[in-house]
Amino acid sequence: MSAAIDPLALTRALIHCPSITPRDEGAQAVLAETLEAIGFKVWRHVWGEAPDGPVHNLFARIGSGGPHFAFAGHTDVVPVGNRDGWSVEPFAAEVRNGQLVGRGAADMKGAIAAFVAAAAGNIPTQGSLSFVITGDEEGPATFGTKPLLDWMEATGNVPDHCLVGEPTSRHRLGDMVKIGRRGSVNVWIRVQGAQGHVAYPHMADNPVRHLVNILHALQARELDIGNAWFDPSNLEVTDMTVGNPATNVIPATAEARLNIRFNDEHTGAGLVQWIEKVAARETAGASVEAKISGEAFLTEPGDFSALLADAIRAETGVETEFSTSGGTSDARFIRRLCPVVEFGLPGQSMHKVDEHVAVDDLHALTRIYGRILREYFA
Amino acid sequence: MSAAIDPLALTRALIHCPSITPRDEGAQAVLAETLEAIGFKVWRHVWGEAPDGPVHNLFARIGSGGPHFAFAGHTDVVPVGNRDGWSVEPFAAEVRNGQLVGRGAADMKGAIAAFVAAAAGNIPTQGSLSFVITGDEEGPATFGTKPLLDWMEATGNVPDHCLVGEPTSRHRLGDMVKIGRRGSVNVWIRVQGAQGHVAYPHMADNPVRHLVNILHALQARELDIGNAWFDPSNLEVTDMTVGNPATNVIPATAEARLNIRFNDEHTGAGLVQWIEKVAARETAGASVEAKISGEAFLTEPGDFSALLADAIRAETGVETEFSTSGGTSDARFIRRLCPVVEFGLPGQSMHKVDEHVAVDDLHALTRIYGRILREYFA
Ligand SMILES: [Zn+2]
Ligand SMILES: [Zn+2]
Repeated sequence: MSAAIDPLALTRALIHCPSITPRDEGAQAVLAETLEAIGFKVWRHVWGEAPDGPVHNLFARIGSGGPHFAFAGHTDVVPVGNRDGWSVEPFAAEVRNGQLVGRGAADMKGAIAAFVAAAAGNIPTQGSLSFVITGDEEGPATFGTKPLLDWMEATGNVPDHCLVGEPTSRHRLGDMVKIGRRGSVNVWIRVQGAQGHVAYPHMADNPVRHLVNILHALQARELDIGNAWFDPSNLEVTDMTVGNPATNVIPATAEARLNIRFNDEHTGAGLVQWIEKVAARETAGASVEAKISGEAFLTEPGDFSALLADAIRAETGVETEFSTSGGTSDARFIRRLCPVVEFGLPGQSMHKVDEHVAVDDLHALTRIYGRILREYFA
Repeated sequence: MSAAIDPLALTRALIHCPSITPRDEGAQAVLAETLEAIGFKVWRHVWGEAPDGPVHNLFARIGSGGPHFAFAGHTDVVPVGNRDGWSVEPFAAEVRNGQLVGRGAADMKGAIAAFVAAAAGNIPTQGSLSFVITGDEEGPATFGTKPLLDWMEATGNVPDHCLVGEPTSRHRLGDMVKIGRRGSVNVWIRVQGAQGHVAYPHMADNPVRHLVNILHALQARELDIGNAWFDPSNLEVTDMTVGNPATNVIPATAEARLNIRFNDEHTGAGLVQWIEKVAARETAGASVEAKISGEAFLTEPGDFSALLADAIRAETGVETEFSTSGGTSDARFIRRLCPVVEFGLPGQSMHKVDEHVAVDDLHALTRIYGRILREYFA
């Protein structure tokens, strides 16, 4: 039907575009041309303004009606970081000793290319296949997947199942599939005290004392012990600031920031309420601000995840592990529309210098994705 | 014998010299000339280098042999602070409604002038009277009283009793005499952890968690309940720093600074040892640095303090209170040489804008100091 696509060549073409969030630098045009060439209809959307935008987004679909399978991912990449730490030019996409090295190779231009190549050889004869691609996954994710999902809903493009191509594999390709993610919330606690001299503590109210007591109470609580599919929820204080240069002065204010990664036994709102209660119990001078990045979610193992595990086993012999570990991804948004799982390349080098992926893994992933498509539409 | 000295005129002359630590601006020359005019022999010493020096110091003595009474104080002053908050030029030393207003009026050029005026009228016929004056009390106190005391020891000028003219009075002249001071120690705690991503806490070691636990343990301990002459010892965390801008990163290090004001049931070294033990119990990654500003000391109430109380009662009708409250002063150094007490003007306005002292108080303090001298040498 359509010409074979080389996942290595396509990955390299994508890496050549230095699409550091929120820039696109031609990455989605490369993708659009390739998808149109194999019969997809492509819609492109540019949303948002500086500094977090404009963000390029792409939706592509082939076929009509159900079942409707979607692949989701992002063409944006994180900055190169310490340039001197790289052994090659980060956007040259050189192949060395069987490894394709470049920013975005693992996270996740390689997976996008593999899925395009898989689709080219496995266009469904009935049902629909689509691509949900954003340029704002590594950034605030404001002008990316969220409005793209809204647009898909409004235009009758809601899939039945979605596979996100994030680099979920750990030590070898296929050893891990993510079937859910923990939620994440950042909380800022600010305590207003009363400044004074350390020699006269009764004339002052030390906000640091209150803040330490609040943080101690928060981090002393065992949030839960985890469950069948989730690690225990976990709280980390990530910053503290007083900014008082004077050794003999009790400061007026103290601040801390913390992050909680929580499983499906909690909600972001419930955790924020708990923190507000602990803070208020310690002092009326405490204020709590929170930003929930995403709620915990789980796609219960079933036919869909079994289909993935079977395809991985058939192509690689690897027995995959279902997991909910790690950071957040755009799957936290997609879950609103349909069951979503994540599976892609080994991610050990993602976000680091000399990010790389084995050329063999690119081809193997293409075969796994192709088998998933055949089984899904069978 | 010698001409009468007006304590108001001398205070004004001293305030006209803007002797913000470590600068002198002619202040000690004014004092030296006045003391020489009434028969004192004066030694002047300039020690130290920028930025904490050079510091001007002055020792003056009249008479020989014992008993040897010394008055101690400082000619340096703190900066003017918020200039716009002043209703007069801070070094003009204007008198308004019976109040002499100016930087150093209360802390402590007024007391120096009062003692010089008292000495002029009460030169002892036997024994010795001396002045121990530094220009580095409000600063690091490195090039001031400490080396001056060394010089006094080396040259046979060790007094039997010392009165420091710090502004110890609270609401009215004479209502408080300090017979000791709490010790003070500043402690810096630094925790080295292991940086990581908040989603993978088992791969990191959060130093903030350890620091919060250490500080919580430290501030939870009741150091003591105070005793007959001292308030309870007290610990205040005065600063905390992490400096981590990334919400999803567990930082590598966390730091805090604390101050303990402690009574004579503790030593600085003992407290530092306790902190080191608490920190080591929590994590091997903690380091503790300490700087002991002064140990607690007490001049047990006895004949010397009774002499002061009697003089205050006789001149003002005020029943004085013996106290060990408040910040440190150079008395913490002088105690090494002889019994030392502190008594001077009301200090409510010290270090503030519109620092002031009642002209009547200057004259009353001169009479009290004069009576102390007569009784001491009687
Ligand atoms: Zn990614
Ligand atoms: Zn002073």
